[in-house]
Amino acid sequence: MTLPATVSGPIYDRIALIGLGLIASSMFWAIKRSGLAGEVTGYARSATTRDTARRIGLCDRVCDSAAEAVEGADLVVLCVPVGVMGDVAAEIAPALKPGATVSDVGSVKRHVIEAVGPHIPEGVDFVPAHPLAGTEHSGPESGFAELFDNRWCLLVPVEHAAPAAVQRLRHLWEAMGANVDEMEPDHHDLVLAVTSHAPHLIAYTMVGVADDLRRVTDSEVIKYSAAGFRDFTRIAASDPTMWRDIFLTNKAATLEILGRFTEELFALQRAIRTGDGQHLFDYFTRTRAIRRGIIEAGQDTAAPDFGRGPKGKT
Amino acid sequence: MTLPATVSGPIYDRIALIGLGLIASSMFWAIKRSGLAGEVTGYARSATTRDTARRIGLCDRVCDSAAEAVEGADLVVLCVPVGVMGDVAAEIAPALKPGATVSDVGSVKRHVIEAVGPHIPEGVDFVPAHPLAGTEHSGPESGFAELFDNRWCLLVPVEHAAPAAVQRLRHLWEAMGANVDEMEPDHHDLVLAVTSHAPHLIAYTMVGVADDLRRVTDSEVIKYSAAGFRDFTRIAASDPTMWRDIFLTNKAATLEILGRFTEELFALQRAIRTGDGQHLFDYFTRTRAIRRGIIEAGQDTAAPDFGRGPKGKT
Repeated sequence: MTLPATVSGPIYDRIALIGLGLIASSMFWAIKRSGLAGEVTGYARSATTRDTARRIGLCDRVCDSAAEAVEGADLVVLCVPVGVMGDVAAEIAPALKPGATVSDVGSVKRHVIEAVGPHIPEGVDFVPAHPLAGTEHSGPESGFAELFDNRWCLLVPVEHAAPAAVQRLRHLWEAMGANVDEMEPDHHDLVLAVTSHAPHLIAYTMVGVADDLRRVTDSEVIKYSAAGFRDFTRIAASDPTMWRDIFLTNKAATLEILGRFTEELFALQRAIRTGDGQHLFDYFTRTRAIRRGIIEAGQDTAAPDFGRGPKGKT
Repeated sequence: MTLPATVSGPIYDRIALIGLGLIASSMFWAIKRSGLAGEVTGYARSATTRDTARRIGLCDRVCDSAAEAVEGADLVVLCVPVGVMGDVAAEIAPALKPGATVSDVGSVKRHVIEAVGPHIPEGVDFVPAHPLAGTEHSGPESGFAELFDNRWCLLVPVEHAAPAAVQRLRHLWEAMGANVDEMEPDHHDLVLAVTSHAPHLIAYTMVGVADDLRRVTDSEVIKYSAAGFRDFTRIAASDPTMWRDIFLTNKAATLEILGRFTEELFALQRAIRTGDGQHLFDYFTRTRAIRRGIIEAGQDTAAPDFGRGPKGKT
């Protein structure tokens, strides 16, 4: 399903990356790994980020304006927080080359389509995308070429996108190591609310609760943080701006999932309170089976990770 | 603070491990790594587990009854689910050697002290313990010698325990690679409710919700499970019996933490609903700082893990 990362030549003559965080920097290194573009230009709003990018060789050319970066580009990828996609699209629109494709990497798709779509000029294709990959780190120095290897990238083409433009973007993502699927925007937003957005909010909440508790000191929480909590803090360390925007722009689906979550949680709390061990055991047995399904689907490994020992990670 | 794992000789002549799951099997390999006992005997209720243990060389001698395993042992460690600790203690009590120490590895301490304590004969010391280490795997084949390296083990000595017995057990855990602290039982149960028990219940709940959702298929959840959800499924794959018992025996503290959790979650849900981005941003910034504290405390590494790529793990 994925093209071997080595079998590739340039897919676009020039790619512009707007926003130079974890995803953009990983895209750059993945593009370079297989020579997927003639030139990659980059732009970040912050001068510090642009300086860092120049220092570490991130992008062939770092520009001081978004308009300069997109000039002559065949593909422009918006790698900024979801909440500012519309503003950035308005800013670059006049500089876009006819025949170019605009894409993005936002975690919410309906809002991005509504915010960016109206700014896309006639003769330019808009093909929203969302790579399901990331780490808890952010910024221009956090990227690495392997981030997308064997991860999914969801393309969410708008109605009037040219099939050739969609196909070419799919080719790029496959050559960067990803598996590609297409999905309808509202369904995308619901699937992500379940698999990513609600879990992140829950992790943020639990970490906040631990910090608030007066009878347990922060240093105790930190010293004795066991498996479950350590994984939560990892999730809860993700970029605050990015996540604020995700929740504000995928409001309906996130709130729906959180509503179901609290319902289920109350049922389990009740089982604990009433001592209904069978209910708990059955529930936990079912969730264990779901985990096995994820491992079988190849989205994770069976290596033990909680120990964080030699067998679990490097 | 920790003795180097190599500088050690036998600390006990004979150690008996009752229950042969992840913790007991890891203890065995850690004991063998540094020659910390003359002989290690083992017993598991299931004949299949005993057969597996014999096949893989887990324990110097696998016995067909708990009484046989503890006979002549200087240290007996109960490595069974918290809910059956009392029954197992009653079963082995008559066979305990005078002067022996009984310990356990349960995740709840007040309940274990109340269930096991009354069965401990005169002349035997009871020193409850809890190693804060584990993986989502269970059973006799899941153990490895490095599981406790640089993890905490909490000793929760009962009032009348002989200081020498506590000191000797501390020495064993340090020689198995752990850092050791002492804690009072009720405080232990509250700290663990925050850092482990509530997070596990929350992870179980979220994985169950994902499975229940009719408009998103299981295969979609599995295929597209992103970082947050993958970590939840990992947590939610832990042993169902063990976790059922933990929630039933640490009921009060777990319910208290869950109550605070739902309060906070409702506040964040409200911020999403009303579009209060500042509240979300401030909250997420605070949780990110907590994560940094955990890394600085040496309880985890800064290596990116969500990508599960070459940089993140083997």
